[in-house]
Amino acid sequence: MALIVQKYGGTSVGSIERIKNVAARVADYHRRGHKLVVVVSAMSGVTDQLINMAKEITPLPSERELDLLLATGEQQAIALTAIALQAIGVPAIALTGAQAGIVTDGVHTKARIRNVTPKKVHELLNSGHVVIVAGFQGETPEGDVTTLGRGGSDLTAVALAAALKADLCQIYTDVDGVYTADPRIVPNAKKLDEISYDEMLELASLGAKVMQSRSVEFAKKFGVVFEVRSSFNDNPGTIVKEETKSMEAVVVRGVALDKKQAKVTIVGVPDKPGVAARIFKALADAAINVDMIVQNVSHGAPQPTTDISFTIEKADLPKAQKVITTLKQELGFAELIATENIGKLSIVGVGMKSHTGVAAKMFEALARIGVNIDMISTSEIKISVVIDAAKAEQAAREVHAAFIG
Amino acid sequence: MALIVQKYGGTSVGSIERIKNVAARVADYHRRGHKLVVVVSAMSGVTDQLINMAKEITPLPSERELDLLLATGEQQAIALTAIALQAIGVPAIALTGAQAGIVTDGVHTKARIRNVTPKKVHELLNSGHVVIVAGFQGETPEGDVTTLGRGGSDLTAVALAAALKADLCQIYTDVDGVYTADPRIVPNAKKLDEISYDEMLELASLGAKVMQSRSVEFAKKFGVVFEVRSSFNDNPGTIVKEETKSMEAVVVRGVALDKKQAKVTIVGVPDKPGVAARIFKALADAAINVDMIVQNVSHGAPQPTTDISFTIEKADLPKAQKVITTLKQELGFAELIATENIGKLSIVGVGMKSHTGVAAKMFEALARIGVNIDMISTSEIKISVVIDAAKAEQAAREVHAAFIG
Repeated sequence: MALIVQKYGGTSVGSIERIKNVAARVADYHRRGHKLVVVVSAMSGVTDQLINMAKEITPLPSERELDLLLATGEQQAIALTAIALQAIGVPAIALTGAQAGIVTDGVHTKARIRNVTPKKVHELLNSGHVVIVAGFQGETPEGDVTTLGRGGSDLTAVALAAALKADLCQIYTDVDGVYTADPRIVPNAKKLDEISYDEMLELASLGAKVMQSRSVEFAKKFGVVFEVRSSFNDNPGTIVKEETKSMEAVVVRGVALDKKQAKVTIVGVPDKPGVAARIFKALADAAINVDMIVQNVSHGAPQPTTDISFTIEKADLPKAQKVITTLKQELGFAELIATENIGKLSIVGVGMKSHTGVAAKMFEALARIGVNIDMISTSEIKISVVIDAAKAEQAAREVHAAFIG
Repeated sequence: MALIVQKYGGTSVGSIERIKNVAARVADYHRRGHKLVVVVSAMSGVTDQLINMAKEITPLPSERELDLLLATGEQQAIALTAIALQAIGVPAIALTGAQAGIVTDGVHTKARIRNVTPKKVHELLNSGHVVIVAGFQGETPEGDVTTLGRGGSDLTAVALAAALKADLCQIYTDVDGVYTADPRIVPNAKKLDEISYDEMLELASLGAKVMQSRSVEFAKKFGVVFEVRSSFNDNPGTIVKEETKSMEAVVVRGVALDKKQAKVTIVGVPDKPGVAARIFKALADAAINVDMIVQNVSHGAPQPTTDISFTIEKADLPKAQKVITTLKQELGFAELIATENIGKLSIVGVGMKSHTGVAAKMFEALARIGVNIDMISTSEIKISVVIDAAKAEQAAREVHAAFIG
């Protein structure tokens, strides 16, 4: 008998029929003697509908009241899920985030969990209940309702699993687990049996949107082992956990392709202290999130210049161009080049730490199909390259074939 | 500068446009310097929609989870109302029933208010806020969400007005106030400037459905003076308060007609102790609500018999006939007569206590238009008669003309 925390996303509870399916799955675990805490998101579409109502009143509704409004989505979903379980004879009880002891700070719409005091959840589990908890929400010590921002329900599940010292945390979603690549692009992509927190974090930040980074970070911090699996079948999913020795045998865990970025190159920047800081401070002040930054050695004398390239979200490109252009006089650079036609291709794996020649093997694969590399950036467990968007998907397949199959 | 509690029903906040109208009205009071607590119901239709979702899962959802589900309707309405006020520059803040200090017992779906601890409401009022409170809901001392049943938002408003010692409690609805009769039946009906709690209670129980009896009873118990008025115009409404000397000058405050009842007569009931108890116990066990009961003196010897008549909701008639028929052997009555074609016509007024000849004047009015009286029942401030449904509306007009004009 284990204590299991399960989390079901909005798609999994997207209709009364699907809520009944979730109830059937939970009931199955319950009958096998497990203690269950079930975290549920709002039915898909509900949150957007509520946001639209608020925006119909005013474009910038107050975040405190927006949280009160949005929290009703999960509250409805837990009530309906508990009712569905009771209807098939399972003693279920629904708790809001506040009732389940999720205490947060007061930063509305993106609150951080301060602590979890799961006394009530423990009591209810011990009296034989299946406890259904509203994801995505909490309460400040002063009693104000808060929400946790994007991916908040995953965070609720992981935080509860940590606080309850759960044996298992299952994140149910609409995919079978974490894949070595996006199967729509790389038909050979395989589902992974396991992956380390760090690899999962790199994949998440590279656009493989199975889970938000913060939930994985939280799990890593508190050592919560969790499984990502599908709510539409019974296939085993992917276990996410601290890296083990055996994981290092695999050099590349996954290949990720991000086509949502744009590239900006500032040509002929005078190479003197403070210039890079000036550029990226200006971008940060404009709330533009910069991803990769590449600066090569400078050349020329007596006043050496360099080129600085960086990538940003495509949506931010016009704003970034405006910001950089206003700096032209001050910085005295030669030219600003921007393009949207790029793809960022990355390979991720903790095995890279102990294997050599990984980068060379990747670059060779790209060369084989005539792909030119624009930018390169590496971390301890990741290599990213920026390439032409037109060849990006073919490149993903080729790199996947070279490392994984 | 007064402390005013306002309550807006589901129709008044039935769309984003109407929520904006409510906000404009509240803002107007706020700008005149009043302190405002605004109780809001769920947007019309939302509660039914939520109930239907639960019933789609199971015909008898658990009442605890149903409360959690239904409470979201009001929570959404307060958030949107607060957002609408903020959008026009009014410092509004939304509170759930629990946050506003509404503590109830644990009888889900029809909880009773145990006490109101409006500390937070006071603080927010003192810091210049307009406080928007979710009607219809509260919280048990253990932290479970409860709802107050039909008319619960009125109750929230009256209870808050009592706890806050408000100067005024305004119940906004879709009618202009309390009328001397239903204007659709009696074109001469007049809006009342004021009415006593007891008269309001009698009218409510007689089918003039402006407010549920329990809210009026609560107001009477705690001496909360309130005004019933329209949210669609600025006309003054009807003040409901303890009766005053001057009220007694008016003999009849209003005329009410209830056409939703059916009449049952049990003919030739042996007149011996325990028979009436047996009949009405059986009806109560079948959850049939009996309204008027009339039993006349018995006649016949050596075994005197009597006729017992009573009225019930039309919908309960088949069930009642079945219940009584099963008692036929045991009680030995002669015959069961039932009819749905009745109207219950009533006059109400505290002035009756000190005026004589009121009943006679009513019966004369009915006689003038050839209406036969089936049953008569009186209380200290009310006279009700059961008459033929076909002539009921004409009778209402004639009686109204005789007493009011």
